[in-house]
Amino acid sequence: MRPSGRALDQMREISIETDFTRHAEGSCLIKCGETHVLCTASLEERVPPFLKNSGLGWVTAEYGMLPRATNTRMRREAKNGQSGRTQEIQRLIGRALRAGVDRVALGERQITVDCDVIQADGGTRCASITGGWIALRLAVNKLMKAGDIITDPLVDPVAAVSCGIYAGQPVLDLDYPEDSEAGVDGNFVLTGSGRMVEVQMSAEGATFSTDEMSELLGLAQKGVGELVAAQKAAVS
Amino acid sequence: MRPSGRALDQMREISIETDFTRHAEGSCLIKCGETHVLCTASLEERVPPFLKNSGLGWVTAEYGMLPRATNTRMRREAKNGQSGRTQEIQRLIGRALRAGVDRVALGERQITVDCDVIQADGGTRCASITGGWIALRLAVNKLMKAGDIITDPLVDPVAAVSCGIYAGQPVLDLDYPEDSEAGVDGNFVLTGSGRMVEVQMSAEGATFSTDEMSELLGLAQKGVGELVAAQKAAVS
Amino acid sequence: MRPSGRALDQMREISIETDFTRHAEGSCLIKCGETHVLCTASLEERVPPFLKNSGLGWVTAEYGMLPRATNTRMRREAKNGQSGRTQEIQRLIGRALRAGVDRVALGERQITVDCDVIQADGGTRCASITGGWIALRLAVNKLMKAGDIITDPLVDPVAAVSCGIYAGQPVLDLDYPEDSEAGVDGNFVLTGSGRMVEVQMSAEGATFSTDEMSELLGLAQKGVGELVAAQKAAVS
Amino acid sequence: MRPSGRALDQMREISIETDFTRHAEGSCLIKCGETHVLCTASLEERVPPFLKNSGLGWVTAEYGMLPRATNTRMRREAKNGQSGRTQEIQRLIGRALRAGVDRVALGERQITVDCDVIQADGGTRCASITGGWIALRLAVNKLMKAGDIITDPLVDPVAAVSCGIYAGQPVLDLDYPEDSEAGVDGNFVLTGSGRMVEVQMSAEGATFSTDEMSELLGLAQKGVGELVAAQKAAVS
Amino acid sequence: MRPSGRALDQMREISIETDFTRHAEGSCLIKCGETHVLCTASLEERVPPFLKNSGLGWVTAEYGMLPRATNTRMRREAKNGQSGRTQEIQRLIGRALRAGVDRVALGERQITVDCDVIQADGGTRCASITGGWIALRLAVNKLMKAGDIITDPLVDPVAAVSCGIYAGQPVLDLDYPEDSEAGVDGNFVLTGSGRMVEVQMSAEGATFSTDEMSELLGLAQKGVGELVAAQKAAVS
Amino acid sequence: MRPSGRALDQMREISIETDFTRHAEGSCLIKCGETHVLCTASLEERVPPFLKNSGLGWVTAEYGMLPRATNTRMRREAKNGQSGRTQEIQRLIGRALRAGVDRVALGERQITVDCDVIQADGGTRCASITGGWIALRLAVNKLMKAGDIITDPLVDPVAAVSCGIYAGQPVLDLDYPEDSEAGVDGNFVLTGSGRMVEVQMSAEGATFSTDEMSELLGLAQKGVGELVAAQKAAVS
Repeated sequence: MRPSGRALDQMREISIETDFTRHAEGSCLIKCGETHVLCTASLEERVPPFLKNSGLGWVTAEYGMLPRATNTRMRREAKNGQSGRTQEIQRLIGRALRAGVDRVALGERQITVDCDVIQADGGTRCASITGGWIALRLAVNKLMKAGDIITDPLVDPVAAVSCGIYAGQPVLDLDYPEDSEAGVDGNFVLTGSGRMVEVQMSAEGATFSTDEMSELLGLAQKGVGELVAAQKAAVS
Repeated sequence: MRPSGRALDQMREISIETDFTRHAEGSCLIKCGETHVLCTASLEERVPPFLKNSGLGWVTAEYGMLPRATNTRMRREAKNGQSGRTQEIQRLIGRALRAGVDRVALGERQITVDCDVIQADGGTRCASITGGWIALRLAVNKLMKAGDIITDPLVDPVAAVSCGIYAGQPVLDLDYPEDSEAGVDGNFVLTGSGRMVEVQMSAEGATFSTDEMSELLGLAQKGVGELVAAQKAAVS
Repeated sequence: MRPSGRALDQMREISIETDFTRHAEGSCLIKCGETHVLCTASLEERVPPFLKNSGLGWVTAEYGMLPRATNTRMRREAKNGQSGRTQEIQRLIGRALRAGVDRVALGERQITVDCDVIQADGGTRCASITGGWIALRLAVNKLMKAGDIITDPLVDPVAAVSCGIYAGQPVLDLDYPEDSEAGVDGNFVLTGSGRMVEVQMSAEGATFSTDEMSELLGLAQKGVGELVAAQKAAVS
Repeated sequence: MRPSGRALDQMREISIETDFTRHAEGSCLIKCGETHVLCTASLEERVPPFLKNSGLGWVTAEYGMLPRATNTRMRREAKNGQSGRTQEIQRLIGRALRAGVDRVALGERQITVDCDVIQADGGTRCASITGGWIALRLAVNKLMKAGDIITDPLVDPVAAVSCGIYAGQPVLDLDYPEDSEAGVDGNFVLTGSGRMVEVQMSAEGATFSTDEMSELLGLAQKGVGELVAAQKAAVS
Repeated sequence: MRPSGRALDQMREISIETDFTRHAEGSCLIKCGETHVLCTASLEERVPPFLKNSGLGWVTAEYGMLPRATNTRMRREAKNGQSGRTQEIQRLIGRALRAGVDRVALGERQITVDCDVIQADGGTRCASITGGWIALRLAVNKLMKAGDIITDPLVDPVAAVSCGIYAGQPVLDLDYPEDSEAGVDGNFVLTGSGRMVEVQMSAEGATFSTDEMSELLGLAQKGVGELVAAQKAAVS
Repeated sequence: MRPSGRALDQMREISIETDFTRHAEGSCLIKCGETHVLCTASLEERVPPFLKNSGLGWVTAEYGMLPRATNTRMRREAKNGQSGRTQEIQRLIGRALRAGVDRVALGERQITVDCDVIQADGGTRCASITGGWIALRLAVNKLMKAGDIITDPLVDPVAAVSCGIYAGQPVLDLDYPEDSEAGVDGNFVLTGSGRMVEVQMSAEGATFSTDEMSELLGLAQKGVGELVAAQKAAVS
């Protein structure tokens, strides 16, 4: 049924290579099937102005796509400025990661997670959140090892997966051929303990029922479970 | 419990003044409590390049806020460019409105819905969708009256409401004081027949359960029901 | 003679609704015929850097037009940046309003007057000045009532009207059909006591004589007299 | 009385060097006292889109200031974009020059007049108009000599001068020390035959009477008379 | 002597992984020591406007650096626009690659080579040229295999290496610690047959003699010889 | 052989008019044949942030071209932003001038050299360096005369000339007709004592040998010798 031959509730293969670059405090190259994202976490010992002297830390994210990450070359964003889509995605990644952070425990420091898509095949924002959390975990590990942080500020892993209705059927973890056909699709961000962080279901030229919504949520819970297991394996 | 004294499932008062401006093909000033949005629908007899000779029409939206629509004056977007938040909102409004449009019936023409917030008190994007549909409806009525369109392309009304968890309780139609406190909140776009178009639930420094998700959805269905009734009254 | 049937020296009907929005310290919706402008005055207890510790206050203005204020939809300025025309207009409004302000009496605070055109039919910059003064008056009234200012800094009302040579005749208060035809037209800003603040007469593909200049000035004096009366009625 | 020792109605010394650069169809370096402006006229055998197939020509202008034309170095406009002031000035120059052009006689071609201030000491926009007309005259002469134009499209010379109230006295042709002190000042654009093209009188923190307006106009007529004589001498 | 312990004329280790991404017509990840650059070649069957109907092809390049490719995180260029340094580098890469291309044999098509620095340790523009040529070679191979091109347009390999005077000694292939100390350094682009394409020697707060220039050129010839051998091995 | 009839190693005529403008601390109009550049040096008693409290001075440069400096009018950079080419050139000018400056002797002050091309005929960046050094020299002279600087920070004059291979022959000081034909050309920046500061040889669709490189260098040494003599004559 699915172009890839996967079962309706089957995830793409996940592969995570940690410490992919040397300068960042934490980094990984995450591959969700043919979607490859380089995630780096950069630590700064200062916070944005609105948090000065608040005792709270900050986690933020930026997202980009290399011009030929896609099937057809896109214009380089450095020439055009960030598109609305890019800004929307990086705001989502930042919110998602912060949902798993105890900002008091982090203390007045900022971690910027950069998610740069090397190769795209659908689900880049979900891969960015899942991989971004790993980079964040590795950077925080360094802070804890150095004794700069005592209490672990990462209270719960955060991961994300897309779901949608493809050819009339709810499916898990859409690749690009499915994504470009699906009239209804969205992203679910969940924590390791199954709590919900963000739901973004969206229909374009279509609508969906509350029952379909429930089915998609069930698929997402299954998928994120597998992603969290992969995160744990990668950082241990 | 609520700052406004409303019941948990009580909407703000809705008022709609159609034909608020004279040049637009359709327009209204919608007031959802103290949130006031001017919506205009502008018709063009041409479509964006990617739709040329496709036989399909297009509905798109733009969103803005006057500098002193808010409690504290904001920098004018014409000086700064549109923020990521603004672009995210106008993409949402466009997608939401298109979900109720039969683009074949519309034919190769474009309708741009401008939603400009005159006064803000929370829920501006939802008021924009609800009021934007009215402006769209009025513009399409003109086309049908003139015989330029035979089949009504507006297959189902579209309206939106926000819900969130405020002080531990699910509440409907958040105003600004609630919105700025709620750790979990989001927007639901539904059709007149109760189908779902868009769900955007988002937690900042918090998480929510699937049960809470269901409760919020229930509230949204009640709220949109009332909005659709108001839409129908306004355009009849 | 005139498309509207008005006499050569007849103004359009003026209507002013004060306190049109709730957040601004002063606001009004001014209607000069079919030209409708929302004016808000926003108070800040600080001045631009060049006035720090000078003891002087500042009044500045910004101007915008909603995309469908005009007969044909214009591109949104938030997408394009402010045009040269827009910047020229808002510089004029600011200068005009400051001409009626005792900046010592105002003290080190800034009032920003935003003039946003809801509907345009010629003369938007003049309506902005006339309505902007009302918003300014209301904001200053609040400061005086609160005892923050003792001496009234608004020494004289300021209002503006356009004049031009249409079909060979000097006419007062041009509407859009006249404005787009007139080879010579301009704006006169005067005070309540008949002093001149700004004269901007401009010919495009035409010229005018000093006698015609005098006639236009006479019309302007008549028109501003009526506007100042309307201002006084609105704020009393 | 005046910092320069000039009489109240005395112009600064005018010097005009034509053909200052070799590529432009017409050019001059105009010096009005210590204000030096390089004006070039560039001919193109095409008009802007809104004039295609109209049979009408177009004259437009651009204005700039070298970073160290002023007493203190200004930021380079190529880094900042054109300021509102710059756009206002170049729109004025364009309108002023067009007032003396028979656009039918010019035919469907465009002449762009660039006015770049090499050294500034007040009155740069007036020097730009006066010098710009010379560049335009020289470029049109070439077209006529080549037989590309039969009827002279320059129906009347155009020149401009500033006037203002300095130390309580109406004065002609303000230099920078006067300009920065004057509470009331403005620019008058007139034709060789004494017709008015543009009047821009402006008060900042001051006002003026209709009698003062008349006096300033008289000064301007005297000044432009001298400028037109200098123009004629330069191009003959 | 050198921080890395290398001999004065010793290159860093070179590693090249071809086909690193799947969408591009040609791609490689080139590692020159700790400098890692992802190069992709994207083919388009159209040329820029200035080459339409000329029968000539075009090769161009774009360059970017991921924000945390460097020791300290840099601002993302998509937010800032391309810096002057970035534009200078990508113009160099494009010129260098074109020097080895027979643009008649390429025919009217464009190949865009994107060079994105994943990790930086000095010499990123040289690695981009050397790796960029490999991506170009692979893309052209596909065109030839498909029969779209008959004559090989790549007439000679092109590669680049940096040289400089470090601690008073001419050294080959500077890494970042050397590069940031050297008062004189530059880049040499050469062909496989030893012809020169581009020389950019630059001193900052220092100067150099013609003898030193000769020594540096000798080092560059040695280095490029090794790079060309590595290129050939990678694409065979 | 050469379009101008010059010998292969013959420079264009050089003319230098110092103190061309009155506000700048140093200025000149340099003419290298038909290439005319206005150079001004502006002094500020502060340095960029990265040099605060370093005891070191800074010399920087900016470059521009008037729209009709060229044969065909170019778009004004103030409208478009600085092109990559412009930024590349002004970075070169700044580096070149700094090579001749003892930044300790200069002390914590900045001199900005603006080079604005009034008329272009090839070699504008070289004329900018040669003329820029004169403006710098004049500004430093003022500082020394005033006793603000004791030790002369200008340790050696700096000048630049272009060379290239035109019609198969190495030639000195290319004008525009040669520059636009030459497949190989570049710029040499040298000091008065014959030391090298910058070499930028570049081939477009061609290559060159090491012997040709030596010949071009020899020509450059001859040319810069003549330029330095002209600099000395101008500032004495």
